[in-house]
Amino acid sequence: MRKAGRHFLQIPGPSSVPDRILSAISRQTIDHRGPEFAKVGLRALEGMKGIFNTQSHVFIYPSSGTGAWEAALVNSLSPGDRVLMFETGHFATLWKKLAEKLGLKAEFIEGDWRGGADPDQIEARLAEDTAHEIKAVCVVHNETSTGSVSPVAAVRQAIDNAGHPALFMVDTISGLASLEYQHDAWGVDVTVSGSQKGLMLPPGLSFNAVSEKAMVANRTAGLQRSYWDWAEMVGPNRTGYFPYTPGTNLLYGLNEAIDMLHEEGLENVFARHARHGAAARKAVRTWGLDVLCAAQGQESGVLTAVVMPEGHSADAFRASTLENFDISLGNGLSKVADKVFRIGHLGDFNDLMLIGTLAGVEMGLKKANVPHREGGVQAAMAMLA
Amino acid sequence: MRKAGRHFLQIPGPSSVPDRILSAISRQTIDHRGPEFAKVGLRALEGMKGIFNTQSHVFIYPSSGTGAWEAALVNSLSPGDRVLMFETGHFATLWKKLAEKLGLKAEFIEGDWRGGADPDQIEARLAEDTAHEIKAVCVVHNETSTGSVSPVAAVRQAIDNAGHPALFMVDTISGLASLEYQHDAWGVDVTVSGSQKGLMLPPGLSFNAVSEKAMVANRTAGLQRSYWDWAEMVGPNRTGYFPYTPGTNLLYGLNEAIDMLHEEGLENVFARHARHGAAARKAVRTWGLDVLCAAQGQESGVLTAVVMPEGHSADAFRASTLENFDISLGNGLSKVADKVFRIGHLGDFNDLMLIGTLAGVEMGLKKANVPHREGGVQAAMAMLA
Amino acid sequence: MRKAGRHFLQIPGPSSVPDRILSAISRQTIDHRGPEFAKVGLRALEGMKGIFNTQSHVFIYPSSGTGAWEAALVNSLSPGDRVLMFETGHFATLWKKLAEKLGLKAEFIEGDWRGGADPDQIEARLAEDTAHEIKAVCVVHNETSTGSVSPVAAVRQAIDNAGHPALFMVDTISGLASLEYQHDAWGVDVTVSGSQKGLMLPPGLSFNAVSEKAMVANRTAGLQRSYWDWAEMVGPNRTGYFPYTPGTNLLYGLNEAIDMLHEEGLENVFARHARHGAAARKAVRTWGLDVLCAAQGQESGVLTAVVMPEGHSADAFRASTLENFDISLGNGLSKVADKVFRIGHLGDFNDLMLIGTLAGVEMGLKKANVPHREGGVQAAMAMLA
Amino acid sequence: MRKAGRHFLQIPGPSSVPDRILSAISRQTIDHRGPEFAKVGLRALEGMKGIFNTQSHVFIYPSSGTGAWEAALVNSLSPGDRVLMFETGHFATLWKKLAEKLGLKAEFIEGDWRGGADPDQIEARLAEDTAHEIKAVCVVHNETSTGSVSPVAAVRQAIDNAGHPALFMVDTISGLASLEYQHDAWGVDVTVSGSQKGLMLPPGLSFNAVSEKAMVANRTAGLQRSYWDWAEMVGPNRTGYFPYTPGTNLLYGLNEAIDMLHEEGLENVFARHARHGAAARKAVRTWGLDVLCAAQGQESGVLTAVVMPEGHSADAFRASTLENFDISLGNGLSKVADKVFRIGHLGDFNDLMLIGTLAGVEMGLKKANVPHREGGVQAAMAMLA
Repeated sequence: MRKAGRHFLQIPGPSSVPDRILSAISRQTIDHRGPEFAKVGLRALEGMKGIFNTQSHVFIYPSSGTGAWEAALVNSLSPGDRVLMFETGHFATLWKKLAEKLGLKAEFIEGDWRGGADPDQIEARLAEDTAHEIKAVCVVHNETSTGSVSPVAAVRQAIDNAGHPALFMVDTISGLASLEYQHDAWGVDVTVSGSQKGLMLPPGLSFNAVSEKAMVANRTAGLQRSYWDWAEMVGPNRTGYFPYTPGTNLLYGLNEAIDMLHEEGLENVFARHARHGAAARKAVRTWGLDVLCAAQGQESGVLTAVVMPEGHSADAFRASTLENFDISLGNGLSKVADKVFRIGHLGDFNDLMLIGTLAGVEMGLKKANVPHREGGVQAAMAMLA
Repeated sequence: MRKAGRHFLQIPGPSSVPDRILSAISRQTIDHRGPEFAKVGLRALEGMKGIFNTQSHVFIYPSSGTGAWEAALVNSLSPGDRVLMFETGHFATLWKKLAEKLGLKAEFIEGDWRGGADPDQIEARLAEDTAHEIKAVCVVHNETSTGSVSPVAAVRQAIDNAGHPALFMVDTISGLASLEYQHDAWGVDVTVSGSQKGLMLPPGLSFNAVSEKAMVANRTAGLQRSYWDWAEMVGPNRTGYFPYTPGTNLLYGLNEAIDMLHEEGLENVFARHARHGAAARKAVRTWGLDVLCAAQGQESGVLTAVVMPEGHSADAFRASTLENFDISLGNGLSKVADKVFRIGHLGDFNDLMLIGTLAGVEMGLKKANVPHREGGVQAAMAMLA
Repeated sequence: MRKAGRHFLQIPGPSSVPDRILSAISRQTIDHRGPEFAKVGLRALEGMKGIFNTQSHVFIYPSSGTGAWEAALVNSLSPGDRVLMFETGHFATLWKKLAEKLGLKAEFIEGDWRGGADPDQIEARLAEDTAHEIKAVCVVHNETSTGSVSPVAAVRQAIDNAGHPALFMVDTISGLASLEYQHDAWGVDVTVSGSQKGLMLPPGLSFNAVSEKAMVANRTAGLQRSYWDWAEMVGPNRTGYFPYTPGTNLLYGLNEAIDMLHEEGLENVFARHARHGAAARKAVRTWGLDVLCAAQGQESGVLTAVVMPEGHSADAFRASTLENFDISLGNGLSKVADKVFRIGHLGDFNDLMLIGTLAGVEMGLKKANVPHREGGVQAAMAMLA
Repeated sequence: MRKAGRHFLQIPGPSSVPDRILSAISRQTIDHRGPEFAKVGLRALEGMKGIFNTQSHVFIYPSSGTGAWEAALVNSLSPGDRVLMFETGHFATLWKKLAEKLGLKAEFIEGDWRGGADPDQIEARLAEDTAHEIKAVCVVHNETSTGSVSPVAAVRQAIDNAGHPALFMVDTISGLASLEYQHDAWGVDVTVSGSQKGLMLPPGLSFNAVSEKAMVANRTAGLQRSYWDWAEMVGPNRTGYFPYTPGTNLLYGLNEAIDMLHEEGLENVFARHARHGAAARKAVRTWGLDVLCAAQGQESGVLTAVVMPEGHSADAFRASTLENFDISLGNGLSKVADKVFRIGHLGDFNDLMLIGTLAGVEMGLKKANVPHREGGVQAAMAMLA
């Protein structure tokens, strides 16, 4: 049976793709070696520098975000290199596993999944590493599994305080274009991102923003690579081309997305996400439920992870709510599987969509007989109006 | 500055066009005299019989609904003919003016714009008309300006009770495919409808469903006509063609719409609209505001017209709400201009979109300092969940 | 079984709709009474003045071109008025029938369907009409059934030479935006056009361009009208609105079309059509077939009608060619039914599409065993290159 | 200045994307972990088995075809493994370089770029390799740089004749869904393909079809891998999911493409490409130019590479032809750069598009003053009709 009306896609990415972008990606494919393509390519490459706030390099891959994680590591490190990572949640853990799979020695600073990376712990560990065995520090900016934000600039400061030469790598797959991000000013060496979150595109493009220091490291980095190799990209990218067939139609969409972000104003985009995060948390707390992120000031404007009351299955709740109110909520991952659900409020989103979303959760809680207090939607409205 | 997220188009038509239909209407145009077109045409003509619940004729015009009003009259009446109409609201009044403009004697049974047509008054007037000067009785099924529904079957009964031979014409431009409609079973001679309401299409197609009795009247009807002439349509329509170039791309969309309505189930579509109307009225009354429709049982599932508190401009409220929450509400028309605003909850719509809509109104009332009680959204949620 | 590749839609309208326009018409419908719509409406109304080359009024109807024919007559004439028309072909004949159906006295200057309207005959007839009983002279600019072009400016001169006050009406449904057209400079009072030809849109919009003289005639014109009434349009149009729900999505496409025409340059658009017409005729003559238009200098750049060799069915040829080469050609209409086929080369079209089209005809002639000489395509190429 | 009409994208991929597929990829993105996605994923995975003609595994990557080359090698081989490759042209050479970059010992059987891989030479080389140092034989099925087709079944026979246990890998990036392909029947272990050729999609998806033997090799293969790892895919794929965010919107298009191929019939698709290849070669030879592929029976139905007359720049010709006739032709690559141009006639293509394409080349040769005989288009038409 057909369900009427728009599905509410409220997972923390992919976010709903606006019509302008869907329309852009459905333009006819063109010759990726012809003169018209060069304009498309240059516009995307230059445009993404503005989004990352960098003057150095941006590389665009036809791949998922996972590919850009791999690209960051294989381009700048060698087999056996030690990397320091921080356990902010499921995605930090996946990145660590990926590093290990590539033959790196990945060291984890353990976390409780309820906040961002801790600069102090990072600084302390780096200070110990007088031999500079650690070649990279890797941090997740917006931890999509928990809704916590790491203080990236403070981590940079921590590295500097320790006087440590490690490369600094940041995953902002789900943060970019929703939360402020400053690749250059924050001294990040490699930033990893993807298309299907704040950039409002379907999945299929991923990004590395790369400092000059990382480009130098690339020359001697010993990990095996080909598809992801920055060195192969630099030349063709200069004139707007790519070393192999690029994801032309998603690049059309990317250029449209960049325009849309500037039409709204990046500052406004960030303020909107912050405001929606605050209203979502207000609703959650009114329901008497816990927000997973317990670190004040590190709550994400991209998503809100909600702790399910003891004895209730988050996945059963999500399934029932999908069935009854046609809204997709994010699931809890690994450690918090079935214990947490996640409300995405990112991308092309506004106040009334947020209220519809929170209403879906509140009515869903009722329908699924999950103990809660009513009034969360009303409280969010009070905050928004 | 770009506004993020989806606009809420909550006027009582055009309703939001679902992606499937937008995609259908963007298919390449084909030869309207070729063999492939015949399939498109037949599918639309037959499909619309199912929507009107008729075995007789359906005619499809490339025009606005206004054109189908005109078509109903010019095809079946002669200059100077008397028609009995009922003042349910602005659209009934417009139809009357159109009749007068065409040289008909249009007689109005006055109404207060707060309910549907009254079968008793119609019966009484017809009973007086022993000379059968009245050639047609015209009633608006769903009065888009007020949110009231006329009891069409009861009006048929009234005509029969009076033993009167007048043609029975019904405008269900905004009712079709949202409210139950039975062209044959209710004994309607000419039904008028349009594409941009329950059919979920953009504006640009209009319809006449026509009984055999009306087809007979057509042979002697003296009003000037050409574009609207049923007689020219009948032949080509038999094989799926039209006497002049049809609105091919909207017909693609119409066929998609008919499929979608059946995928949901027409009964479910009607129940959904009724449920959303009830929830909307619950919210309005919780706010302490008046629903314009005062006739119990005649409130529309398509839209809810809300009376603005004395001393407050409905149009100023709508403008402020559009600006602040990116939602379009319907304006009050003629007699109730600036005194009423209308909330559309028709077409491709669901619970969470309704809550978003009602939240837009409630937050808009607050922002515009319109006196009201909070809690309308919460009350609507309680009803829906 | 699916046919691979693009269908060649080479009827003389609807022409192939370019992707940019299909994309534009699939944008979400908006509130036709809201502030955003005003921009859409004004842009379309003003933009069409530039296409018609007029400073006076342009009216846009949600209807087929047939509706705009009717609009021209009912807005400016009274029952029993005499109109002088010229038999250029099938569409001139249909317009005459429409006039008669509306109660006008339509007088035809007979033609042989092989050329445009003859100014001399028109002047002679008008000179005889010393009582000025003729209220309008109606001429088809580009006769879609024959591929002949009437000398509109010369007809104006003929009217002036006769010192006759009749209104001058021109149908350029299939000429506009393919052939030069000057509503003001050529002294036309009412120009009729449609969306699905040179404007590259799907069918569903039609146009009247109207001189001040015709607007004055409108005030006293006695023919019954409502949907088509210019007087109702003037007010709302001033601010970009319409008296009833407009064809919003086609208006999106219209604005895109106007942009595209200016991006190419109207002069270039006209030159392209002329060049393609010449190449098409070259091919036809190389095949040893006759071009229906026998009046030198009046051959259309929009389409080429080809006379079938005696004893061969044009419709059988068209059906076979459609089947074998997936190309739709136009049929012969009424007098020339089955004797003529028509090759459309209008709208969004280029050299290689023309060669593909002519190849479809040439290979189709061979497949259908229609006697002809080979080499038409090669001759057209020689002319184009 | 805007160019009117459709661009002719006649490079050997990306091929023109049909409207149905563009429409499919512009559907709203959904939750890649939700129940609706499972249907999309399973349909794609199962559907591609039918296209590869395999009962074993198909893996789908969000990446360019280049990624699938890498995937084939890293999943089944270990550092230092020897692979035997055949120099059919530029793409065979690129694959070899990739193998070397990954730390494999790639051995090339040299070729003259004018035919497919030679089974005899392969058999001879394998027969010498009594120690079975060669771990894989890699052949390009349709060499996109030359328009030659390798006899894949015969290469399998050669390996068997030599009694050699090497894995057999085939790149049919540009052959799949245009030329017959039998992964199982031809005994291929790993087949590599991509989306933007015969599958008619935009670039962005790539494929591995994998035999059980290769799956076994995967368990011990020592090359570093993560994104490309088959082992991670197998589990999630079973229920239609993927280990990381898949290219949802391109998967929509893939499912549409598979439907379209079956609607036409794969046998018909292959016959169409063969017929168009023959007609293209007929034109080239009529012009008095050389087809690059000199091996009779190995000419491709996907593209025709044409040798430029001595002293004329193929790239200058292509640029002039693009400018004058809005057609993109493929360039000569590496060894044959500027000496060869390539005409793509693959994907969603038909007779009239082919004639338009060949006319673009013929008129382009004239415009660019490249010596040639006229009549190529006419000769191709004679063959097609």
